[in-house]
Amino acid sequence: MDIATLIGVIMGVVLMLLGIITSGGINTIVNFVDAPSFFITIGGSFMAVFASSTIPDFVGGLKCYGICLKTPSGDMKAIIKSIVDLSNTARKEGLLALEEAAGNIEDTFMKKGVLLIVDGTEPELVKSIMEAEIDAMDTRHKKFIQIWEDIAGQGPAWGMIGTLLGLVNMLNDMSDASKIGPSMAVALITTLYGSVVANWLCFPISTKLKKRNDAEYMLKSVVIEGLLSIQAGENPRVTEEKLKSFLAPNDRAAYEAENGTGDGGGE
Amino acid sequence: MDIATLIGVIMGVVLMLLGIITSGGINTIVNFVDAPSFFITIGGSFMAVFASSTIPDFVGGLKCYGICLKTPSGDMKAIIKSIVDLSNTARKEGLLALEEAAGNIEDTFMKKGVLLIVDGTEPELVKSIMEAEIDAMDTRHKKFIQIWEDIAGQGPAWGMIGTLLGLVNMLNDMSDASKIGPSMAVALITTLYGSVVANWLCFPISTKLKKRNDAEYMLKSVVIEGLLSIQAGENPRVTEEKLKSFLAPNDRAAYEAENGTGDGGGE
Amino acid sequence: MDIATLIGVIMGVVLMLLGIITSGGINTIVNFVDAPSFFITIGGSFMAVFASSTIPDFVGGLKCYGICLKTPSGDMKAIIKSIVDLSNTARKEGLLALEEAAGNIEDTFMKKGVLLIVDGTEPELVKSIMEAEIDAMDTRHKKFIQIWEDIAGQGPAWGMIGTLLGLVNMLNDMSDASKIGPSMAVALITTLYGSVVANWLCFPISTKLKKRNDAEYMLKSVVIEGLLSIQAGENPRVTEEKLKSFLAPNDRAAYEAENGTGDGGGE
Amino acid sequence: MDIATLIGVIMGVVLMLLGIITSGGINTIVNFVDAPSFFITIGGSFMAVFASSTIPDFVGGLKCYGICLKTPSGDMKAIIKSIVDLSNTARKEGLLALEEAAGNIEDTFMKKGVLLIVDGTEPELVKSIMEAEIDAMDTRHKKFIQIWEDIAGQGPAWGMIGTLLGLVNMLNDMSDASKIGPSMAVALITTLYGSVVANWLCFPISTKLKKRNDAEYMLKSVVIEGLLSIQAGENPRVTEEKLKSFLAPNDRAAYEAENGTGDGGGE
Amino acid sequence: MDIATLIGVIMGVVLMLLGIITSGGINTIVNFVDAPSFFITIGGSFMAVFASSTIPDFVGGLKCYGICLKTPSGDMKAIIKSIVDLSNTARKEGLLALEEAAGNIEDTFMKKGVLLIVDGTEPELVKSIMEAEIDAMDTRHKKFIQIWEDIAGQGPAWGMIGTLLGLVNMLNDMSDASKIGPSMAVALITTLYGSVVANWLCFPISTKLKKRNDAEYMLKSVVIEGLLSIQAGENPRVTEEKLKSFLAPNDRAAYEAENGTGDGGGE
Repeated sequence: MDIATLIGVIMGVVLMLLGIITSGGINTIVNFVDAPSFFITIGGSFMAVFASSTIPDFVGGLKCYGICLKTPSGDMKAIIKSIVDLSNTARKEGLLALEEAAGNIEDTFMKKGVLLIVDGTEPELVKSIMEAEIDAMDTRHKKFIQIWEDIAGQGPAWGMIGTLLGLVNMLNDMSDASKIGPSMAVALITTLYGSVVANWLCFPISTKLKKRNDAEYMLKSVVIEGLLSIQAGENPRVTEEKLKSFLAPNDRAAYEAENGTGDGGGE
Repeated sequence: MDIATLIGVIMGVVLMLLGIITSGGINTIVNFVDAPSFFITIGGSFMAVFASSTIPDFVGGLKCYGICLKTPSGDMKAIIKSIVDLSNTARKEGLLALEEAAGNIEDTFMKKGVLLIVDGTEPELVKSIMEAEIDAMDTRHKKFIQIWEDIAGQGPAWGMIGTLLGLVNMLNDMSDASKIGPSMAVALITTLYGSVVANWLCFPISTKLKKRNDAEYMLKSVVIEGLLSIQAGENPRVTEEKLKSFLAPNDRAAYEAENGTGDGGGE
Repeated sequence: MDIATLIGVIMGVVLMLLGIITSGGINTIVNFVDAPSFFITIGGSFMAVFASSTIPDFVGGLKCYGICLKTPSGDMKAIIKSIVDLSNTARKEGLLALEEAAGNIEDTFMKKGVLLIVDGTEPELVKSIMEAEIDAMDTRHKKFIQIWEDIAGQGPAWGMIGTLLGLVNMLNDMSDASKIGPSMAVALITTLYGSVVANWLCFPISTKLKKRNDAEYMLKSVVIEGLLSIQAGENPRVTEEKLKSFLAPNDRAAYEAENGTGDGGGE
Repeated sequence: MDIATLIGVIMGVVLMLLGIITSGGINTIVNFVDAPSFFITIGGSFMAVFASSTIPDFVGGLKCYGICLKTPSGDMKAIIKSIVDLSNTARKEGLLALEEAAGNIEDTFMKKGVLLIVDGTEPELVKSIMEAEIDAMDTRHKKFIQIWEDIAGQGPAWGMIGTLLGLVNMLNDMSDASKIGPSMAVALITTLYGSVVANWLCFPISTKLKKRNDAEYMLKSVVIEGLLSIQAGENPRVTEEKLKSFLAPNDRAAYEAENGTGDGGGE
Repeated sequence: MDIATLIGVIMGVVLMLLGIITSGGINTIVNFVDAPSFFITIGGSFMAVFASSTIPDFVGGLKCYGICLKTPSGDMKAIIKSIVDLSNTARKEGLLALEEAAGNIEDTFMKKGVLLIVDGTEPELVKSIMEAEIDAMDTRHKKFIQIWEDIAGQGPAWGMIGTLLGLVNMLNDMSDASKIGPSMAVALITTLYGSVVANWLCFPISTKLKKRNDAEYMLKSVVIEGLLSIQAGENPRVTEEKLKSFLAPNDRAAYEAENGTGDGGGE
């Protein structure tokens, strides 16, 4: 459970409700519920993005909302640890010994890389195949993130369309002065919905997804860097030193506390 | 038929009509039809973009609207399959055997590449000719996409010009108070038209065209990558492995289900 | 005469006038003419850009307006044709035979390149001199384009300054209620002028100039590519194939209809 | 104590208070305090950013506020001086003599680099390890800076959400005309809070953090440049000349006044 | 005296005054002077930028205002002329003869480069030292330009803060209807000040400084290009041809009129 996203999203609603209740009283909440406004703003912005996309991409993008609430799986320290272990194995028992070790690797990306090395693929090709894979992943993820960013952009736009629709109707019929206020209130609700869609629904998700993607990209770059270092026959200690540069100071201290300082892991 | 774009664009209108009808009744729809507003906003924004372009580019850009409603032709899996087949042919029967195979290739870009290889053109030149071709395609497509993006930018601007024209006239003649509301309503219609042009008409098209162009660019890059791999005499299995990196996990699974896992296609 | 720009710019005015006349009648056109608004918005925005520039750059930028109304001179197909002709001459009679051919070249850029080759300048230097020249051209053109883009940005800003000046004065003297409307109308005229400056005057020009510059840059890149190919002694057919990649499919078909398909021009 | 940030931030509040007091009197300050507005704007914008981040990143970002008030530690002149000293030591007594010198270096980054050199690590690897380290630092810092930039973007957005909530409620209940003004005032307070969050709280911090990060990045680049120059066995005078190019003219004059002009430091 | 900047900035004020006087009469000028508005908008925006910077950078940035009013010192034609002269000297009398010539060079940057060449520094190092110097200059200048760009961004923001402060106070006390107009006028003055700060004070300066910096960067790049050409022992005529590519057509014609066409200057 990714607690920050969950708390942040729930607190966003709570604070808006709190704002409404403390200023207008609890029975004013109904003022903010309006079905036609919902159709125009939420419907319009989702449909515009749907039209700009394909069904699988759009559905894939929406599904990512769930991903943000789950704890991310990769852990840089564990990845580095297992690469250093592989490096020690390769040094002591040769590259071919990695084939057996590959059986125990859960990360499919690292496994694929190890098998390429065991197959005797030349380094340049290993690098280009693995980089093509993470670039394709990056492109794919960005397509999904774009869905949320596009909705964030369309939300306020359709909110304004809704408000203009409401205002034009209101201005054409101002015979009953007592209705002007409420009509204008209804017209403004679409603008409100648009802002909420953009800033409460989409902004946290698209930003979080981008950070997740960056983290995953970096993790996989570390794997590539590490495997190429193993394939080049570099000293496990050098490999470890190289990869530790990617860790934040805190994580590096934690890593060194667990694995000893730069002595090449289990050597 | 690209169903997402069609549904999205139609639903956009339906939702706006629904919003108008549920809030003001069906006979208020006439409030939103105003010929001078149409001329200023739609005419003005299209003319500004027309002036910034040339006749063939502008017409070419407008024609792209239709393209978005058609199913895209290229299929990455089929392309990879046929490159792997070519690779097997080249390996078994030599590069010259590709000449005959080229006769069956429908994709003119791939055909051109195969013929260049058969002609014995050196790899560096094959690469630069084919890359120049897809870069020129990319530039050409971006010119068309730009037409829609420019209209999306000009729409709200001319909407505001129209609203200001209306407001200035209204403010100069406020003798009849009962007309102020409807005059202001008419003034706002241009702003509404501008938003609709930008967010309903242009945004889905320009975004979709960009995605189509990216997909086509990637497809053609895969072709180049594959043909160069064939020309370099690489093992069909390596070629296939390389190209499969460009597939999304789903497509890769589908590809492997159809063609076997990494055994070089029909070998 | 570049017909699109001329039509687009004239139609922009016509549509605005049409909008005014159909909504308020022909005698309301005078509502939109106000000298102080003109001074603040047009004067202010031009002066701000003038202050940010130098006299020659500013004047040069303004002069570009005229350029947009003229037909562009370069034609990619003719350029490629003449490079292929030069290539054939060089192949048959040697590089020195180009000296005579250079006398008939009208394009000063291509002429300069041919003379550099005839002089026996080494390829690396020919490339760097010619690229420095088109980069300098690009920088120079972009300075002029920037003038129009800056005015487009300053227009609405000074329009708002004018509107605020008018509103402050109006709000300070609201003793005569019948004057409030017209005063506000006058205040809004500067905002209107600002939008018109940005979207009718500047946007088409700056966008068109950018496209013209891109086209000229590409044309000159083709010349460099072609001349280097000649200097490298490449087969005229290869040179032609390379350069044809820069043509759009339509132009390529037209080119091939005129010059035969890939048989090296007049060979 | 970084005096500019402290003065700037305090003066920002003082000037706003001064503006309120001189225009409305001191007792109007209470008009600007409203708890629900605070919850919606400050709470909403912080929660949206919290949701888009992780707990450690968010807390780390907030903590950076304090960093901006402290004097930065690195001094380019001192760093260059000590690198030139190391260069002289290395030249006179050999690279191994740096091991002892490393003991006196406080800067952990420079120390690590010196130890890598002493260990006989090959230059390419020293460079890649040290660059990976500053790139990772840069990425880490930018994550923290992004927190403040995101809050700056969310502040006005949630301010508008709050204002719309207030307006809708106000428009629905306009029975008591004397309350319309104050209700609208309260509605506008959230917009005010949003602007203050963005421009008084976040802008100076995020901009300052970016400048600090740039300065630190440059300082560490100078260290890398210098150490690689030492490892390459370049003349200390050349090393010094190279590094002095990074100093501003003032600092360079000061440096030369302290250390002599280009005579290789303590030689 | 840079006449364009001076005229532009003065005319900006004159046009605003003209606008006020022609529309409201000369005695309405006092409507636009309000000390608290001045404190909030000008004070607030300058303080926010001050807080985001350091005292020397902020003061350095402000001082640049004066630089824009002075004529720029460098002249590309003269620079090229003197490099070609140096090139002729070096060719006839050898590189060491440049030492004497260096004594007469006023430009400290060119002098430093010539001395590096005379010292026998290797070309790669000359290039990297000189490029580091102009990159450092560029970074330094951009820090100063950023000050003005940041004030341009903060101006309207603090203008809006001031307007909101004024509106909240006005809305809380609407007992005297005759004061509502003037109060709102005062509230709007901060927005006006903010726009004037951004578009009259900051925009021309920051844009001009950027152009000056670009010109200086290009001038120094030409110096580097020229000196490296001299050091490589290239023919003075080639050097001249290379450098002339950086001149605009007008300047090139002027240069050739003064120095003869491409015959290597004084040869």
